[in-house]
Amino acid sequence: MALDVGGTEIKAALLGAGAEVLAGERVPTRRGAHGTATGDSVADQVVELVRRLRAAADGAEVVAVGVVVPGIVDDVAGIARYSANLGWRDVPFGRLLGERIDLPVAFGHDVSASGIAEWRLGAARGFRDVAMVPVGTGIAAALLLDGRPYRAGGLAGELGHVDIGHGLPCACGASGCLEVTASASGVARRYAERTGIAVPGAAEVVRAARQGDEDAAAVLGDAVDGLGRGLRILTTLLAPEVIVLGGGLFGAREFILDPLRSWLAGRLTFQRLPELRVAELGAEAGCLGAGLLAWDAT
Amino acid sequence: MALDVGGTEIKAALLGAGAEVLAGERVPTRRGAHGTATGDSVADQVVELVRRLRAAADGAEVVAVGVVVPGIVDDVAGIARYSANLGWRDVPFGRLLGERIDLPVAFGHDVSASGIAEWRLGAARGFRDVAMVPVGTGIAAALLLDGRPYRAGGLAGELGHVDIGHGLPCACGASGCLEVTASASGVARRYAERTGIAVPGAAEVVRAARQGDEDAAAVLGDAVDGLGRGLRILTTLLAPEVIVLGGGLFGAREFILDPLRSWLAGRLTFQRLPELRVAELGAEAGCLGAGLLAWDAT
Repeated sequence: MALDVGGTEIKAALLGAGAEVLAGERVPTRRGAHGTATGDSVADQVVELVRRLRAAADGAEVVAVGVVVPGIVDDVAGIARYSANLGWRDVPFGRLLGERIDLPVAFGHDVSASGIAEWRLGAARGFRDVAMVPVGTGIAAALLLDGRPYRAGGLAGELGHVDIGHGLPCACGASGCLEVTASASGVARRYAERTGIAVPGAAEVVRAARQGDEDAAAVLGDAVDGLGRGLRILTTLLAPEVIVLGGGLFGAREFILDPLRSWLAGRLTFQRLPELRVAELGAEAGCLGAGLLAWDAT
Repeated sequence: MALDVGGTEIKAALLGAGAEVLAGERVPTRRGAHGTATGDSVADQVVELVRRLRAAADGAEVVAVGVVVPGIVDDVAGIARYSANLGWRDVPFGRLLGERIDLPVAFGHDVSASGIAEWRLGAARGFRDVAMVPVGTGIAAALLLDGRPYRAGGLAGELGHVDIGHGLPCACGASGCLEVTASASGVARRYAERTGIAVPGAAEVVRAARQGDEDAAAVLGDAVDGLGRGLRILTTLLAPEVIVLGGGLFGAREFILDPLRSWLAGRLTFQRLPELRVAELGAEAGCLGAGLLAWDAT
């Protein structure tokens, strides 16, 4: 059983031995009086979902549960150190789950689990040194180095906060952070700042660029430049064989993916050019990764 | 037996079980007609040194040989991919040694071996996530992640070539590379460019700064700013618990080490502040690391 807990919804799935989805559901993350989802309330909700998935298993043996959450997660200690989406700080979620569930429970990090899923089941199959880079509200990197996830207690892979030199302030308190200009949210916000036209997301900016909107093209060009600089740093330090890019932005081949490939090919000197691949598992990667963590816990 | 092969000299040592130096010598790296040290000529020289060290062992059992070289070294494949100092490209040095020596031979990379030595015997003892950053002619990083060296076929850890935004050209063909302003060679060169006074190395720039030379202080200030930016990137991506700094520059506490500590403490936001320590093993680290590789090969 695999559960991907987010700030707004929980994705739950019953997976077979080959990670095939046998049953699944999505429910809103339950929030309490003050709009916060406490560790206990979410753990209780997980227990209910586990009960329903078990019923859906229809007598087949269920062997373990994997649960992933966003933020800074110390999976070794079983503690969600910080999660802005859930409003958590130092929640011992691994223990809260273990106390409630009579099966082996694996607790992990959503982005890291997505990286494991892309590595074992998706775009990075067969490689040993991999970075999986989801670009959405922010930008992160799940690192798989020498065939193992590298976590550093949940602190590793904060690619969105490397300084790429644009000098603009970031919500983290620093300036120059990659995700300010190159995240999907950043693209939408910068287009709105530049044109005065509010847009719900980066997809609208891509659409505008396709219709010849020069402001949209300029904002996307800045995102490409930023992503190029970020991936160049990643490549110089870690030399991944493949970088898996996740998020809707990379559907914009002509404005994002192709120029990004050219940027990197033209700006690396002695470094090995990593293969750039688009993620294959989409929004299900976190849940599938939770399932893989569960298998590993058996 | 441990040998650290450099472009100008080879350090050779007989080490005891506790990595204590029982005997040692330094000889110039032998060069052929065109000034190049071929793989075969260096392998032959290693064999001679091994014979002498064996004699020095005075009947005690010698169990293995470790040899490290500079450059880009694929230790898994046993190939020195590229070494500017030795003039090598794709030299199968592991095989050349194995053909000549009737003991287990470990072949590795000098900086990586130094990192292993500082981790097991020196400043990074007891940590799991470590970066060892030697600052000399260039700047590199030996990465020890989750208790294992991370190598990526010898391509990982090129910290000296992350773009920190100064825009100055680097010998690698890119611009903005950290080592242009922050390596010991870079400090000496930039002082000479700024003042017209040629200096043999960074030590003279430190000496001048101590005597109130404002140009020297400015050049060292740029180096601190560069090192701060480089270590901030390293910390954001890899979150090492400790960064071990190697090279004579860090003896300049008041101009380099103390300001660097302040820079990092003031510019990290959510990241964990890594401990900054000065390397303990000095120029012997590579040779000691070669010895540790040899022990591991038995």
